[in-house]
Formats: sequence, C-alpha cells, structure tokens
Amino acid sequence: MNLLVTPEGLARLDGDGAVLLDLPFADVAAMLAAGEGFAPARAARERGRIPLGELRAPLRRTGAIWGVGLNYLSKARLTGRPIPDDPILFLRPPSAVSAPGEEVVLPVDRSRQVDYEGEVAFVIGRRMHHVPPGEVWDGVAGVTAANDMTARDVMAATGTPTLAKCFPGFGALGASVLDLSEVDDPESIAVSTSVNGTVRQDSSTAELIFSVPELVSRISRFAVLEPGDVVLTGTPAGTGQDRQVFLSPGDEVEVSVAGVLPLRTRFR
Amino acid sequence: MNLLVTPEGLARLDGDGAVLLDLPFADVAAMLAAGEGFAPARAARERGRIPLGELRAPLRRTGAIWGVGLNYLSKARLTGRPIPDDPILFLRPPSAVSAPGEEVVLPVDRSRQVDYEGEVAFVIGRRMHHVPPGEVWDGVAGVTAANDMTARDVMAATGTPTLAKCFPGFGALGASVLDLSEVDDPESIAVSTSVNGTVRQDSSTAELIFSVPELVSRISRFAVLEPGDVVLTGTPAGTGQDRQVFLSPGDEVEVSVAGVLPLRTRFR
Repeated sequence: MNLLVTPEGLARLDGDGAVLLDLPFADVAAMLAAGEGFAPARAARERGRIPLGELRAPLRRTGAIWGVGLNYLSKARLTGRPIPDDPILFLRPPSAVSAPGEEVVLPVDRSRQVDYEGEVAFVIGRRMHHVPPGEVWDGVAGVTAANDMTARDVMAATGTPTLAKCFPGFGALGASVLDLSEVDDPESIAVSTSVNGTVRQDSSTAELIFSVPELVSRISRFAVLEPGDVVLTGTPAGTGQDRQVFLSPGDEVEVSVAGVLPLRTRFR
Repeated sequence: MNLLVTPEGLARLDGDGAVLLDLPFADVAAMLAAGEGFAPARAARERGRIPLGELRAPLRRTGAIWGVGLNYLSKARLTGRPIPDDPILFLRPPSAVSAPGEEVVLPVDRSRQVDYEGEVAFVIGRRMHHVPPGEVWDGVAGVTAANDMTARDVMAATGTPTLAKCFPGFGALGASVLDLSEVDDPESIAVSTSVNGTVRQDSSTAELIFSVPELVSRISRFAVLEPGDVVLTGTPAGTGQDRQVFLSPGDEVEVSVAGVLPLRTRFR
C-alpha cells in the first residue's frame, strides 16, 4: 500500500488515481505516530476513487527528521573527502518540509548555491532505543523519496547542516509513503534524480557507506526514535555541487525512489 | 498566568495548588501551536482546584527545539573561547524532552561527563519568518526554565551538539510556562541553577551575548519558527564543566527562572 495525502484526506494510490480512506489522521506521519504502522490504513473504510491531483505533504506532522552527511561511496570519491568513521548526523525542523509538487522559493538573500539531494527516506514505525542493526527493519514502517536541499554557501560559512537545510521547503518528502513490508529488498532500493528532465543522480541504497540498519541503530544508541520520525539516508554523486551548477528559478527536480510516487519540486 | 500539565490535564498555577482548565490540548506546546497564545487558557472553564503533585512535561508536543551554544559572556570568559560572530545554533529532538521532577537515566555506556545547563527558554506564539529584532517579542508567547543537558565527552568526540544533547530526558522544560505578557522586562530574566542544594549558576538574560530578539530574528532569517516551537538561550558560567565535576546517580538539579515554577531533575 502506497499512501498519499490529498486535499480530501488520506488516500491510497490506485493506478493513475487514488482511493480515499476514512481515517482520523492529518497525514501519514500522524498515522504512523499512532504506533500501528499501516494497519489503520488497511482496515479503513474506502470513501471513493478520485483522480490524482494536487497532493499535500505526507510527512508534515513529524517529531524528528534525521539526516546524514556523506553516506555514498560515489559522493565520497567525487569530493575527495575521507570516508567518515561515524555517520555525520543532523536534524531538520518540521517547518522546512515541503509538499509534492510545491514551488519552493530560493532564499536569494541568504544563498546563491541552493542544491538538490535526491535520497531514500524511511519512516519509523515503533519506538526504538539501543536497537541492534539486526532488529532495525522490524521498527521501520515505510519508505519515501526525499529532496534534502542544501544551501552550499551557508554550509561552508556556518559548518552547520541544520542551518543550511532549514529554509522553508528545503525538506521535500513524498510523494507517497510505501509500506516497507511490500519492499522485496529494503537494503537495495533504487533512487534517481532528474533536473529539468535530465538524470543527474542514479544509485541505490546498496551503495550506502552506513547501511540503513547501521544508521538507525547508531541514532538509537543516542536518541529515542519515535513512530512517525523520519530518517534520511544521504545522497549519491551527481548533485549540482559536483558540477558547480546550482538551482535557478524555473528549475524542476524530480526524485524517484523504487515503488514510490515520484517527488517533484519546482523552484522560483 | 502560569500553565502546568498535571495528570488530570492542563492547569494554571494558583498559590501552592493548581486550578484545572477545561481545554482540548495535550500540553502547553499544543495549545500555543494553535496560534492564539494564552487566550484559550484565559477563556477556559475552570474544573476545580487540586494540590500540586506530579507534573507532566508542558512542552512535549513541540515542532522544533532550537538551542544555542556559548551565549553568556561569563561562560565565554571562563572557557577562554572567543565570542562567536554568530549564534551557534542546533536542534534537539522532541523525544529528548523530560518532565518536571523526572528521573533521568545517565547514559553511562556512552558518556561519563553528563552536565547540566540551566537556561531561560521561550515558546513561540506565532509564525515568524524574516522578523526584525524589534518585532520578535510580539511573536513570543511564553517563558519557561530549561535544563539543556550535554554529554561533554560526546560533544568533544563528535563536534555535534545534537548528538551530545539528544539522549532521553536531556531536554528538561518546565515546570510551568509563564505568559510573557506578565513579564516586566523580558530582556532581563533571572536564572539560577542549584545542584544538590548548592547554587552553581546565577545570572540573567541581560548578560546574553546575543539577546533573545537577536537570536530569534537570526533563526527566522533561515527557518520558519512556528507556534509552539521552543528557543533556548544558552547557559551562564557555573556548569559542571567549569569545575570538571559531572552528574552522578542521586544528584538533583533545580533550574529557577524568575516567575516560573522551578524545574527539578533527578539522575540515576
């Protein structure tokens, strides 16, 4: 099951349309925060089929959104940066989340180097603390696409990922959230990013430096992960930084994660 | 008005007791997230008076909790660190929030240097983006006390405030949230911290390097601050780090902020 948030409420993807579900949650994060994974959606009464139109953010009501720097070998090789001993972790505020199809304003007063980062993101399904890597997948509920945007010049000036990534809209998540139990091999999920129709990133979570079980286990040895929290996994080679070409007004970026409705973001 | 969360729901402090309020919010953060400040509490029907007993966290349902490193001149002088040009900002996950009176487990497997940091914290009352310092107070709804705990050795090893401060319970907030409109001079709020009854920190927000208007304005030039978000302001000299004495099982720390019910935390 692939969940969406439409202006009429939560829905499941159904071919080229969506089936509305009778659920008391504002979004998918709020549903998963209830701690029962996709069970409420599976049990929900259906309210009729609608065409796919405007979509809302499926993961706006999150507690924590964890991100990780430099987590693909391809990116480490390209930048020449050493492979880190431990994941470089940061948080992004929920106010930075944007919806699928949203037009994000480039903060030109603060940055001339806004960059996309296509990523695979996971949504936590149950409370996790001190979880060994081998038990991580049991606590993950869903998978989605992320555009983990970064103001490269703000990052260089402040050294603070949270500041470089907290601008409104810089955390695009969606377009749908796929039930992880329907993913054949969660350690090998394809992700690609296109900018104005040209593919710029093309990789898979099989190429991660720190696998998802390692990453989530690591976070859980410090913080408690709660249902509805989101964990991003890092971006592969092919960002604008690699070509020194940054986002301009009118650009459109699409992040595709296997099995998930593609996540489009426009810029102005 | 000074709001508390009791096991029976939201209440206002009334002498040595509390008056229960008929409100549909889980905590003070959720009430302020509705964007009407303390108005719902002022208009609420009263449900009777109770003695002050166990308290819950007034600010558990937050979106973002912003913190700031090195923001008191006294702390900068003592550590010999240069005064920063810009505030050193970080986020803490909501899962790290602890309640007034809570017993926090020292994460001895990861840290032998857990330290207290008594601070004044503010709760945002309305959406703020690109707000000049002169307009910041209009968007702040409440004031409370914080114990912004830090694992000093984790900070030294990772350089990441979020990791050093995300352990369960490390973000104590409360015990009450005071309506800011009842504070005479919000730029001069007294804060003191005692450890096992001995006063260790004693200062005022008048001593901040970056004042609250500067701090909040700065954050708002990057991120959107939303109603219910929390902004910590940094800690003055007198932490355990200054004496190289860290928290041990059985210790009790109390942070007192003028006008706010003192915030006690025990450690085991």
